[in-house]
Amino acid sequence: MTEKPSPALQVALAYYHAWTAKDFEQAMTYISADIVCDAPAGRITGIDAYRAFMGPFVQILTDADLIAAFGDDDTALVMYVIETIPVKHAPGAECVTVKDGKITDSRFVFDRAPFEAARNQAT
Amino acid sequence: MTEKPSPALQVALAYYHAWTAKDFEQAMTYISADIVCDAPAGRITGIDAYRAFMGPFVQILTDADLIAAFGDDDTALVMYVIETIPVKHAPGAECVTVKDGKITDSRFVFDRAPFEAARNQAT
Repeated sequence: MTEKPSPALQVALAYYHAWTAKDFEQAMTYISADIVCDAPAGRITGIDAYRAFMGPFVQILTDADLIAAFGDDDTALVMYVIETIPVKHAPGAECVTVKDGKITDSRFVFDRAPFEAARNQAT
Repeated sequence: MTEKPSPALQVALAYYHAWTAKDFEQAMTYISADIVCDAPAGRITGIDAYRAFMGPFVQILTDADLIAAFGDDDTALVMYVIETIPVKHAPGAECVTVKDGKITDSRFVFDRAPFEAARNQAT
């Protein structure tokens, strides 16, 4: 990790620490109203859709471990491993663009396969 | 991206540019004999197992676009979107540890779901 977080990394880390602490409302304060997020299942546009996407995710979260985090003035890249109720080991990565202290664009990578397997087992 | 790539990022980028140019043997020169790679399907240990994992991946690759790349002295984090024969849009992220110019540890995140869907459709 960089020793002095860049402007974008400060926001990305504040967002990360909020949602992984399950403080979802605090996390949402870092999200732009017009966010565009490319997630594994497709593009999510606007803060309401983003809230509907991330809310359930935060509810199943049980632990999180930051692997690496870097950034520059307007871009940050983080990787973490989270533990959730259905999937115990779920690595993920996010690349965010930050403008005026808010995340305006986000690309979110994680493996949906174990989540789908858990869902299929449950039904 | 950092303006002056850090030592670890230089190696991570050289590795990335080699494998995405489908120069697999060049790419493998950046991999430590004792590599430990945590991939979506599990842990891969040693260069022979890594070769068996990455080789088929490189064969199905048709295009690659680097999204972001950062690093410090011994860690680098990259995100990219690749296009493959079965899956046209496949984002991925890698966090690597570099020692003496070689990647010794790697954590590799991508979504297996579309690859599994393509496989199921093909059979």
